Amino acid sequence: MTSIDLNSDLGESYGSWTMGNDEAVLDLVSSANIACGFHAGDASVLLKTVRAAKARGVRIGAHIGYNDIAGFGRRNMVYAHDDLVAETIYQIGAIKAAAQAARTTVDYVKPHGALYNTIAVDEAQAAAVIEGIKLVDPELTLMALAGSQIVDQARAAGLVVQQETFADRAYTSNGLLVSRKEAGAVHHDPQKAAEQALAFATGQPITAITGESVLVDADSICVHGDNPQALELVKSIIDTLADHGVAVSHAR
Amino acid sequence: MTSIDLNSDLGESYGSWTMGNDEAVLDLVSSANIACGFHAGDASVLLKTVRAAKARGVRIGAHIGYNDIAGFGRRNMVYAHDDLVAETIYQIGAIKAAAQAARTTVDYVKPHGALYNTIAVDEAQAAAVIEGIKLVDPELTLMALAGSQIVDQARAAGLVVQQETFADRAYTSNGLLVSRKEAGAVHHDPQKAAEQALAFATGQPITAITGESVLVDADSICVHGDNPQALELVKSIIDTLADHGVAVSHAR
Amino acid sequence: MTSIDLNSDLGESYGSWTMGNDEAVLDLVSSANIACGFHAGDASVLLKTVRAAKARGVRIGAHIGYNDIAGFGRRNMVYAHDDLVAETIYQIGAIKAAAQAARTTVDYVKPHGALYNTIAVDEAQAAAVIEGIKLVDPELTLMALAGSQIVDQARAAGLVVQQETFADRAYTSNGLLVSRKEAGAVHHDPQKAAEQALAFATGQPITAITGESVLVDADSICVHGDNPQALELVKSIIDTLADHGVAVSHAR
Amino acid sequence: MTSIDLNSDLGESYGSWTMGNDEAVLDLVSSANIACGFHAGDASVLLKTVRAAKARGVRIGAHIGYNDIAGFGRRNMVYAHDDLVAETIYQIGAIKAAAQAARTTVDYVKPHGALYNTIAVDEAQAAAVIEGIKLVDPELTLMALAGSQIVDQARAAGLVVQQETFADRAYTSNGLLVSRKEAGAVHHDPQKAAEQALAFATGQPITAITGESVLVDADSICVHGDNPQALELVKSIIDTLADHGVAVSHAR
Repeated sequence: MTSIDLNSDLGESYGSWTMGNDEAVLDLVSSANIACGFHAGDASVLLKTVRAAKARGVRIGAHIGYNDIAGFGRRNMVYAHDDLVAETIYQIGAIKAAAQAARTTVDYVKPHGALYNTIAVDEAQAAAVIEGIKLVDPELTLMALAGSQIVDQARAAGLVVQQETFADRAYTSNGLLVSRKEAGAVHHDPQKAAEQALAFATGQPITAITGESVLVDADSICVHGDNPQALELVKSIIDTLADHGVAVSHAR
Repeated sequence: MTSIDLNSDLGESYGSWTMGNDEAVLDLVSSANIACGFHAGDASVLLKTVRAAKARGVRIGAHIGYNDIAGFGRRNMVYAHDDLVAETIYQIGAIKAAAQAARTTVDYVKPHGALYNTIAVDEAQAAAVIEGIKLVDPELTLMALAGSQIVDQARAAGLVVQQETFADRAYTSNGLLVSRKEAGAVHHDPQKAAEQALAFATGQPITAITGESVLVDADSICVHGDNPQALELVKSIIDTLADHGVAVSHAR
Repeated sequence: MTSIDLNSDLGESYGSWTMGNDEAVLDLVSSANIACGFHAGDASVLLKTVRAAKARGVRIGAHIGYNDIAGFGRRNMVYAHDDLVAETIYQIGAIKAAAQAARTTVDYVKPHGALYNTIAVDEAQAAAVIEGIKLVDPELTLMALAGSQIVDQARAAGLVVQQETFADRAYTSNGLLVSRKEAGAVHHDPQKAAEQALAFATGQPITAITGESVLVDADSICVHGDNPQALELVKSIIDTLADHGVAVSHAR
Repeated sequence: MTSIDLNSDLGESYGSWTMGNDEAVLDLVSSANIACGFHAGDASVLLKTVRAAKARGVRIGAHIGYNDIAGFGRRNMVYAHDDLVAETIYQIGAIKAAAQAARTTVDYVKPHGALYNTIAVDEAQAAAVIEGIKLVDPELTLMALAGSQIVDQARAAGLVVQQETFADRAYTSNGLLVSRKEAGAVHHDPQKAAEQALAFATGQPITAITGESVLVDADSICVHGDNPQALELVKSIIDTLADHGVAVSHAR
């Protein structure tokens, strides 16, 4: 049976502030990108979320971010190389310890927000993240934007890389994301998102925003469940996948 | 040859702010209590300090503290049990990852400041720290105040405990520290401090502030090197120990 | 016409995290205790909330708290006197500037959470808060727990004090709050809460948890609107007040 | 008698971490740029530094910065317009309250680090800072990089602007700073720095790095005193100014 990995950003509550709908999302996805306390999450939220993922057999990833709680890790920031290496190591260590406490393991690293977008195009910051991962655990998989330059850079450095795609985002004819600033960047039609997810899962080309067919390597599909509508979209995607014999699983 | 462990608080710089004289102290002590980012230190300082300790063969300990950079972890704070467990795990994970990156290991945990003093007398907070250590790595040694209740509590829970003493602090006839608020709490005479350290190292009784002889179990002696005078005191202690055939070492 | 002040804690969102239902609550209350960034809120949330209060003619108070975002200012903390004075001044300054930017003023100070409870009984911390308020603006009113020692202490120091009561909390025969740890501490019956509010508003005695009648001075009543049920309770209280000819207003 | 303003960055200690040599510098300069807690400083340090400046008659400026303690406000960051406006207001409010507590006033605003450099060239961030200043107190002077675009932008918006120069930095033939990345950017010769300061103070042209004479408008000269060598340079500059009949004063 064919399968595809669905991943979602989780563990983003902070102190007395709740964000998202983690329990509901964990029932649907196969991989959990869990915030490590630098852009969201804190020690208690991290441990609780790791335990909740473990309880459901959901794969655990380190969702590392810039040291910017105020900006939720979404602001581009200049970083000294050594700081980014050290913060990568620190955050991975924190979630590894939570996983150890929950008697499970961390399998992958997915950078968050501005860091995710920056390392897709900036070799220097990408190199810092890759260096940090390799220093703390070279067996960790890196999950990165499908088709971006860090995919080859990380593989050349010896890391296993999973390419991530987005069901509800439009792509260019080069297989890259259309910027959110452009019209049509987001598929608001659930049916369209589900069909795109199915194409990713089955290795079929998708239709680019300009009409061409384009094949995008998809090892995982990112979904969001932080509001009821988003959760419905995830369920709709899963139903479409199931109708075509595609299971949700991180094991391929 | 007899030996005694000397430990010191290190890695307490933060961002652009420098604290202490880590390089000089690392040349003298056998164990480094390295701040993990909650009361002092940050990811970069932590990694750099772990590497500097590794380079000199100095044993590495997790100096965990309350989540209070503003108060340097010196303010008593009410803590929910689960938060203290989670923060213990988080901080240990962060330094373990730094140690892994430096190809070395973390051998012990020494709580800092208000947390150190609280768990010496508060069974509930002590239980949270012990639970956190056991969940992440039960092989870690706990370094705690000699003669305090957490020593027995942690041993009963299965942890190896090292009892820590202070060369320049006066003790009561019960073998406990005289409060800093009382006159005579600190030995300002370097000779007196050195003699007390020698007694600790050789298993001899010391003289309590009230004149009695009292035997204090001492697996390690805490020293400070954050100013030139303090550094001289450490050297003076080491010279006195050497004159009596006692080496500085964490291996016994 | 008789009137009573209703106040509520607002502006407690933080960065990307939303808390409460500020718009709805601002339509109901006469005084807004707006978080100043130390236990909740941030510069943007503060400015936005001050503007929203101004737009509705709701009186603005500085909701100052301990410097503890992680604990939402709800954890008791040891504080150096000078730090508490300085943080009181700092937070009041921040909200005064927001009020100036919104072309309005800050009229009162209401400490939050652990600070509120501590200064109700701890003369030293109370003195620090009073000193801070007087240094920055002695015309500011202090809103404090009805019947607590800080009421007299602050008045003796020259501040105008408003005594705050709680519609849904049980009182002792001495006119003090029953601890939340005790059974019956909270009135879950909306009718009972509304009747107690009416008694506060009209200067009538309430029934203590032990059955006696007790008169509690009430210059303001605290209400919460952070969930639909709480909001309904506020509306029910206001309806009951209106039925008895009592308006909601901070002007007496 | 001719005079020139000397300003310096002060109040940059943080919690238990000390930075700089504020007492010594305050004895020399006429204007103190005091950190407001976002990139450095905290409520206690702020109040203490404001009081120390007041005690010496040194003019007080709000040294506002990005919300980045970890990076000391030296990292370029993307900022939403409303956040930068709100943080400008917040920081100015905090220092105004400290000044009120010290029975003195804040006279000017000097942005710090990455914010200072960004608003010298980025009209959007400059507009946010200008908007924030005007909303909280349009009488505040803005101190900005001499010859930069924000000088005209702020004046057009109605602010009084003081142009700031640097004694020990080389200038281009256009009157702008030579980037620190280029050779010769810093005058390591105290004599050269003193002569340049004298030229600024007396309205004479200086020699650009490429040899041409260039006239730079200088309302204030920035000096640093955070190490003994830097402090000597400041004294040497002041001596040179005095030898030529130029006093250090913010009053012109």
